[in-house]
This record gives sequence, C-alpha cells and structure tokens, in this order.
Amino acid sequence: GDTAAMRVLYHLPLSPACRAVRLALAEKDLAFTLAEEPVWERRPEFLARNPAGEVPVLADGGGTICGLWPILEYLEESGAEPPLWPGSPAERAECRRLVDWFAAKFSAEVSLPLIHELATKRLFRLGGPDSRALRLARDRLASHLEYVAALFERRRWLGGDTLSHADLVAAAELSVVDYLGGVRWSEAAPARDWYARAKSRPGFRPLLADRIPGLDPPPHYDCLDF
Amino acid sequence: GDTAAMRVLYHLPLSPACRAVRLALAEKDLAFTLAEEPVWERRPEFLARNPAGEVPVLADGGGTICGLWPILEYLEESGAEPPLWPGSPAERAECRRLVDWFAAKFSAEVSLPLIHELATKRLFRLGGPDSRALRLARDRLASHLEYVAALFERRRWLGGDTLSHADLVAAAELSVVDYLGGVRWSEAAPARDWYARAKSRPGFRPLLADRIPGLDPPPHYDCLDF
Repeated sequence: GDTAAMRVLYHLPLSPACRAVRLALAEKDLAFTLAEEPVWERRPEFLARNPAGEVPVLADGGGTICGLWPILEYLEESGAEPPLWPGSPAERAECRRLVDWFAAKFSAEVSLPLIHELATKRLFRLGGPDSRALRLARDRLASHLEYVAALFERRRWLGGDTLSHADLVAAAELSVVDYLGGVRWSEAAPARDWYARAKSRPGFRPLLADRIPGLDPPPHYDCLDF
Repeated sequence: GDTAAMRVLYHLPLSPACRAVRLALAEKDLAFTLAEEPVWERRPEFLARNPAGEVPVLADGGGTICGLWPILEYLEESGAEPPLWPGSPAERAECRRLVDWFAAKFSAEVSLPLIHELATKRLFRLGGPDSRALRLARDRLASHLEYVAALFERRRWLGGDTLSHADLVAAAELSVVDYLGGVRWSEAAPARDWYARAKSRPGFRPLLADRIPGLDPPPHYDCLDF
C-alpha cells in the first residue's frame, strides 16, 4: 500500500515551492514524510541527492525528483488521481502559464524579497528590513492580487473550472506572504474569496500549523474565516 | 500540411529561453515564423497574448503558449517526433532537473548578469559594465562548465543516452554567453566537446546567424570547429 515511509519530501517550511508540492501530494492522497533540510549547511548527503542544493526534493521508490516543475510533471505522469492539469492542450497551457507566473514572477517580485527582508534577516541576524524593498514588494503584491481577482471573476478556480497546480502554487506563494504579515486582506476582497477556497482544502491544514521559532504569523493566518 | 504561417514564435534573439524553443521546434521539424518582440515597449497587443509581457510565446492553431516550461511540455504532449524527454520516469526527472538547472540556476548566476552587463547596458546606453559582476558571473560559469564536463564524461548527452531538452536549454544558454565573448573554450575542453556536438545540430544554424546591431560576437562564435 501507499505508506508515508515510501515517500520523503525534503523541504523548508517557508519555501513556497515546497508548500505547493505538499498541497499537490495531499490532493492526490499520496502519503509522505517531511524532512526539513537546512540547505544553507550544504550537507554532502543532500548535495548527493540534488547537486543544486535546493528544495523541494521528492524521494520515492521511483527515484529522486528535484525541483518544483520536475516534481509536478512527475506526479501528473504517475497517474495519481485526481489530475491537477486539465484535459485539453489549451487549458493545460493556461494552467502552466499561471504556475510559471506565480513560481517565477510573483516569487521574484513579492515572496522572495519579503522572505529575505522579514524572515532571513531576522533569523540569521542580518539587520533590520530595508523599508524601500518592503514597499516595492507590497506595491507589486497589490498588482498581483488584482490579477488574481480578475482571473477569479470569470472562473471557478484560477486556471479554469477545476482545481489545478495553478491554484496550489499561487496559494502556496500567498500563504508564505501571509505568514509574514504581508497581505492586507481588507483591501483585496475578491482575491480573498479565491484564497479562502484554496485555504479550505484539507491539505492546507498542516501548512497552516507550521511555526518558525522566533517568527510568529499574524492572528488571522490560520483562520479559514479571515 | 505543417507550414510556417501556422506557427509564430514571439522572441528576442539573445533570450536563451527563446533559443531553446527554436532548437526544440527545429528538432521536431515544426516550421515556424519568428516575430521579434521588443518586450520593453510593453505593446498592448503583446500583453494581450502574454500578460507577463515576456518571451518566449508560441502561437499556433491550438492557442497561445507562454513561457519556456509550458512550451516544452506542450510540444511533448503534442506528440511531435522525436520526443525530447526520454521514456522512463527517472530519466524524465533527470532531464527536467537539468532544464531547471540551466533555465533557472545557470541563467540567474551566469547568463542574465552577462546579458545585463555586456548587452543591455551597451544597447540602452546605461554605462559601462560592472567589473565585479562580470568576474562573479565568469567564476560561476567556470563551475557550471565543470559540471557539464562531469555529466558528459559518463553520458552521450547531458541528460542520458539521447538528445533531450536538457541539451537544448543548456546549449541555448551557453550560446548567448558565447555570443557575448564570455567563454574561454581553451580552458573548458570537455564541455567544449559536448557543446560542439549540440552546435552541429541543423537547428543551431539560424541561431548562429543572428546578429544584434552594435554588438558583434567573437570570431569563433559561429564556427563548428572552435
């Protein structure tokens, strides 16, 4: 049977890409064990698994799969139900476009700078946050939330009629920003409706329960009604 | 039949991701027309195709596909021969890991900084290159070329026994760095052997013929024996 011992996800709790993989595994009801990997230590055992030294890395009976895109495509090709890409080529292209949007563009413009300013600097004692970088990331977040609202206005989920990796990757990114107190939900009601829908998936619960020592999320962070 | 009029690739000649798509289309013998897109102008017609405002974008009878990963997976799922992912899940994961390595890691550490310092600054008259950024990118390039050599020592192509997107993405990245005069091939003989093999694919010829006005490549750039 499918047991957690067969599948290990090397991860970091505040990595959006790792969160997206956790959500995908949960949607497909694939049991897994989490192994937190301090990538900055560059452990030889971990570099042997992934020479890039980055998470997420998924190890299962079939081998070791490194990186967000390789893992998502691997899970789909494994046939684990339900599929998280839709059926037609055009719909699949649209969902992949949005995965790219959130995993690359949103990440570079919003989540990576906020993680650096609000988490890394604090946890590694590298000084206070740069207020200009914070302001820029928050302005860009506002644009991205408007884009989410525009997509959600005409669709049931971000990529189309069904839940897809587009929602999971976007919600994973946003969940990290929300942990860091970066989202003013009162000013982003339509995007909040979509995020509430994603957040209520059962696979979201373990993510919302994670806590980073020395870095508490705002009180609304793990509430389904926020 | 398959005519160029049916398929348009919006691109920039020095974009490694666009070059990788051109190589993949050529390997699959899919005819296409190139449309150079000045993304910095943010033309409304182009933003309507890709709200991210980035290239590559592939438009064909099936719709508009935006971004490197979405295009590569779309081409594979279309069934166009030959496949550029290998057959087994483990081999596919390995090729996708390397695509991620070159399209994300190599790009961030080597090609993007070199393009910025040596092409963008010159073409947009933004001042001279930053010698510290150049040195850092070149040091990192040396490590990447050692990694290519280590892979190629035990394989016929980078990802395994057959040509795959891993080779095309890596060669596309390297071709841009080479255009900018960034590679000292005499110090990287094993990586050169692999690059010579990739460069001799017929699909490489149009890439090597492209010239950016005001920015000439070194004399060896378009030679198959370099």
